[in-house]
Amino acid sequence: MKFVCSATDISEACQNVQRAASQKATMPAIEGILIRAEEGTVHLTGYDLEVGIKTSVAAKVEEPGAVVINAKYLCEILRKLPSSQVRIEADERMMSSITSGEANFGIKGISPEDYPELPSVTGGYPIEIKQGLLRDMVRQTIFAVSTNETKLVHKGIKVEVADNNIKLIAVDGYRMAIRSEDIDYKGEELSFVVPSKTFSEVVKLINDPEKIINLGIGKRHIVFDVADYQIVSRLLDGEFLNYRTIIEQNNLESSQTTVRFKTREFIDSIERTALVISDRIKTPLKVAFSPGSVRVSTQTDIGSASDRFDAEVGGAALEIGFNNRLLLEAMRACETDEAYMKLNGPVAPAFILPLQGDSFLYLVLPVKMNAAS
Amino acid sequence: MKFVCSATDISEACQNVQRAASQKATMPAIEGILIRAEEGTVHLTGYDLEVGIKTSVAAKVEEPGAVVINAKYLCEILRKLPSSQVRIEADERMMSSITSGEANFGIKGISPEDYPELPSVTGGYPIEIKQGLLRDMVRQTIFAVSTNETKLVHKGIKVEVADNNIKLIAVDGYRMAIRSEDIDYKGEELSFVVPSKTFSEVVKLINDPEKIINLGIGKRHIVFDVADYQIVSRLLDGEFLNYRTIIEQNNLESSQTTVRFKTREFIDSIERTALVISDRIKTPLKVAFSPGSVRVSTQTDIGSASDRFDAEVGGAALEIGFNNRLLLEAMRACETDEAYMKLNGPVAPAFILPLQGDSFLYLVLPVKMNAAS
Repeated sequence: MKFVCSATDISEACQNVQRAASQKATMPAIEGILIRAEEGTVHLTGYDLEVGIKTSVAAKVEEPGAVVINAKYLCEILRKLPSSQVRIEADERMMSSITSGEANFGIKGISPEDYPELPSVTGGYPIEIKQGLLRDMVRQTIFAVSTNETKLVHKGIKVEVADNNIKLIAVDGYRMAIRSEDIDYKGEELSFVVPSKTFSEVVKLINDPEKIINLGIGKRHIVFDVADYQIVSRLLDGEFLNYRTIIEQNNLESSQTTVRFKTREFIDSIERTALVISDRIKTPLKVAFSPGSVRVSTQTDIGSASDRFDAEVGGAALEIGFNNRLLLEAMRACETDEAYMKLNGPVAPAFILPLQGDSFLYLVLPVKMNAAS
Repeated sequence: MKFVCSATDISEACQNVQRAASQKATMPAIEGILIRAEEGTVHLTGYDLEVGIKTSVAAKVEEPGAVVINAKYLCEILRKLPSSQVRIEADERMMSSITSGEANFGIKGISPEDYPELPSVTGGYPIEIKQGLLRDMVRQTIFAVSTNETKLVHKGIKVEVADNNIKLIAVDGYRMAIRSEDIDYKGEELSFVVPSKTFSEVVKLINDPEKIINLGIGKRHIVFDVADYQIVSRLLDGEFLNYRTIIEQNNLESSQTTVRFKTREFIDSIERTALVISDRIKTPLKVAFSPGSVRVSTQTDIGSASDRFDAEVGGAALEIGFNNRLLLEAMRACETDEAYMKLNGPVAPAFILPLQGDSFLYLVLPVKMNAAS
């Protein structure tokens, strides 16, 4: 293998592809980047057996061929090349040489035969969505993905696609986040669970919010076409929480207490009051809703804190306890200046909704307050 | 104690003073900030028994008095206050209350009687130096301070002040950094060692490079007046390396090899070549000086790397080994585009000097290369 190409192009491509390369030393090949040179093009692949990222750069290929080079060293070297051009070569024994200006590096490569093949996704249903829209939807749900290893399917984000609508759903044992948007889609109803790590990687490759991402969904895999990159990922199997039942069981239309608030004010009050909550002892925040007013307070070993802001409180007055972090993350994910909170007493889940429509829905379970607080 | 003041002023003051507060839980008082309210002014002090930082802010004092409040919680609370004003109160039992807008915090304070007294520095010799100049001199020497606990005096920077000149000297077992500058000083010759931590704190408080820092030197302590802050620190005792002898022993005027190089080119070559050096196995860099050229190379388990740049090499050709980090840090500390390197064979210390004058001098000991490299 022997080719010359732009140092900047291959460096940028390798930095991106590298993120799918494995970081653990179980199998040297998957810690590397597969470099495959064909006429006029060099293909680059990173793949840790779960997520794969592929791209290509234009090159003057003098001798086609392939080699796998350790991703970390390759990226560091490419980043520091002195000239705008780089020549990469590998001999039959996979001894690789990287030359640019006066700098030369020699690295022992790995045979491409030792590199795993990426799954192919065929016969999928194509979905198109704007880069910026998918990025926002992921950001506004991914925080609620479970980090608990026991139920693997909840480490992913469920995607439901139906007649001109796409919905992302994330849950852990204490909360739920749903984001819904209109898209152009008239195909079959689809439902699949994408590992949250895959969505993180897709979002990092976004280069223009107005451009389209293509999703191809197969039986066991999904492929994203974003910018000049292709990301292939397995889908997660298993029974995902039935969120519709939960929403139906909690009568949102006629909740006991409905609060209309300014999102920023609620966030500020939680942040301030939580200053006296230590990470070790998770004392709940007490949130008291009364006509015209929301008071947030807590009392811990460190001291006491309270704050208050104006809000439209309809229905029954209520005191309810929350884990400060869960409530804060839901509030921060609201993309609107104002929102509703709908409550059904101190032990029922609290819902956070937009003033109009159903573009998002967050659920946070309350925490029991002890008698003293 | 009871006072009202600007939330921004006291927050900024506390963030700065906090850095001298202790982070370890050996004695609760020194983890706090001493707040002392007098007519029109609130004095704030952080002091970990080694370095103390003091400042004051204007305040409407309704009841003079003092309290010590945990620095971490105080700073976090002050940073998040909702209003531009804050009221701080403490009762006889040191129960403290911080109120701003609708937010209120209650924190148990500590009696000021439990707070240690800062040493006073009297009868000192005043030295004046521009903030920006001291900052540069510290940055260009502090990297060479020893991190070895066995010789405590070398964990500081030696300061020598004589007829219109100030010199900073830092050494560890492998290198030496000296920075020298002209200042207005006609007093007695002075020599003292300031802990590097103290200099770090002083540099962080610099707010205007053109303004003056006042140094007051006592027998065992030093006090810096910078911006609106006063920093008091103990000085280090012990016998500091006699750098003059080392320089005299290495005949700089008639060194065997003299290299005039572009600092940036040497730095780039070291950085590139070091990419194949792992942190664990400290393989030396081989630097080969020959007429017109410097070649930097190394061969490690990861692979090989080499780079080359043009330079004026006078005297004997030479191959010499260096620890890449030590050489790089010295090169980076040069504040000139070009510099000299003066060498006396593969086992003698290498000196790095400016083209003219004696504003800096760096020494790096070479590393023995094994026969194979």
